Amino acid sequence: VSRVLVTGATGFIGRHALTPLADLGLDVHAVSSQERGGPPGVTWHRADLLAPGGPTRLIGDVAPELLLHLAWYAEPGRFWTAPENAAWVQASVELVRAFAAAGGRRAVLAGTCAEYRWGDDARCREGVTPLEPSTFYGRCKHATQLVTAGLAEQAGFELAWGRIFFLYGPDEDPRRLVSSVARSLVAGEPARTTSGRQLRDFLHVADVASAFAALVGAGGVTGPVNVASGEAVAIRDVVARLGRAAGRPDLVELGALPDREGEPATLVADARRLRDEVGWAPAHPLGDGLAATLAWWRDRA
Amino acid sequence: VSRVLVTGATGFIGRHALTPLADLGLDVHAVSSQERGGPPGVTWHRADLLAPGGPTRLIGDVAPELLLHLAWYAEPGRFWTAPENAAWVQASVELVRAFAAAGGRRAVLAGTCAEYRWGDDARCREGVTPLEPSTFYGRCKHATQLVTAGLAEQAGFELAWGRIFFLYGPDEDPRRLVSSVARSLVAGEPARTTSGRQLRDFLHVADVASAFAALVGAGGVTGPVNVASGEAVAIRDVVARLGRAAGRPDLVELGALPDREGEPATLVADARRLRDEVGWAPAHPLGDGLAATLAWWRDRA
Repeated sequence: VSRVLVTGATGFIGRHALTPLADLGLDVHAVSSQERGGPPGVTWHRADLLAPGGPTRLIGDVAPELLLHLAWYAEPGRFWTAPENAAWVQASVELVRAFAAAGGRRAVLAGTCAEYRWGDDARCREGVTPLEPSTFYGRCKHATQLVTAGLAEQAGFELAWGRIFFLYGPDEDPRRLVSSVARSLVAGEPARTTSGRQLRDFLHVADVASAFAALVGAGGVTGPVNVASGEAVAIRDVVARLGRAAGRPDLVELGALPDREGEPATLVADARRLRDEVGWAPAHPLGDGLAATLAWWRDRA
Repeated sequence: VSRVLVTGATGFIGRHALTPLADLGLDVHAVSSQERGGPPGVTWHRADLLAPGGPTRLIGDVAPELLLHLAWYAEPGRFWTAPENAAWVQASVELVRAFAAAGGRRAVLAGTCAEYRWGDDARCREGVTPLEPSTFYGRCKHATQLVTAGLAEQAGFELAWGRIFFLYGPDEDPRRLVSSVARSLVAGEPARTTSGRQLRDFLHVADVASAFAALVGAGGVTGPVNVASGEAVAIRDVVARLGRAAGRPDLVELGALPDREGEPATLVADARRLRDEVGWAPAHPLGDGLAATLAWWRDRA
């Protein structure tokens, strides 16, 4: 039985990744700076990855053969520009160096669609679309890939880099798009959004997490892999679906908020590597996933 | 009087940077993991920047307003692929984070021509030539730039990134091109080299160091700045000049060694930012510099 260490295990994605990893027959070790929770059989570690030497001590304690590194700074709104991104580059490089030094075999890390150059209408494709991140978050994630992927090549372990696009699901931070719209609708209040003409690529958080688990298990698949549906959907259609699912399409106020500067018109993945090389398929169609997310907020209203 | 902290201060470039920094009227603090030396008036600190928390402690001790970060792994031959590059990304990010947190105003870091995409014949120009490093060293340097330049933008301090091309000078590691040829010639032994058709951009190490000192003093100039002559010279011409300066052109055996794979035919800088915006000019023409380097080895033979 191989041992996998999961960082960010209490985060939005991480908490959905533990069961699919256990389903692969792995010995799941989870780390978080916060309170623990999750399915039985998981061994929990509390560690601060941002403390000096923290990642190295954690790897020494757990001695994992596999690594799924999801922890990062994720405060909605702030994460695009927060200086904390630099701290996470430092922590992530230390973590992967320690993992390699301890004989780790395969690491999977979370990247982002914000590494790609924005502004083209073509689907973002691994190894083809230029990597010209325009945000600090995107630059820090991409820097982490440059260093850790190179280290994997030099030190002879496997590293796959899952580029996350857009996601949603129950229990997401209420400041995020789908959560904020769902909460407004459930409360019978107007859901004010931008024009919503942008095309995006959405996955349910449980699908994102199961894709990462599949990546952990996909020995031999290395390098960047888009973690996405490959389907383009307009933000306004996502919002409209929520309005219909709530039975209150009248509450949706598209265009009530100004569009954000610097946002690309299209940000959609080529998802063939994930589908064909990893052999993964999503389990939550967008309509069902949105309806379930709305129901989750209704239960808590 | 502003205080500048210089890392790598006993290194090949660093030891030439201390006097020009002092000439700017700065209070020069130098750090090295090795023995100290250098001009009077410099305050020395011994620190291991690769130790956990090492960069943060150093910044706390020195509290510099200016930073010149030259330290990096530089073992000839090995540095292109060595895992130590990742350790230096981590240390460099920690150093700049601590510098910013302590109120630092302006940082200058050492980048490399290996950040640029190789293979075009055009001069490498800042902000124009694509950044697609093909070596692990180049990727780690570029990752450091992505993170630290972004941090400077977010945290509101100045950061200039000097991209070094090729350099030579007295007391260089004997495994490097100019040193190894000079030593062979001085010893009356054949100097065996590759075909040497590649075009490169060479600067004397004292010029590289004075350019970095000028960058420290060039408040307002930020972002990437090529540290180079802007002059293309064939490696074979460098070697031939050394042969003539030694009075032994017969010892030069061009083409005795196979060309290295993956080496670009042309790697020459556009040096206009350094000349026009920083207002710097080299003091050591190539012919004089090579002759002086040969003389240095002759004195030690």
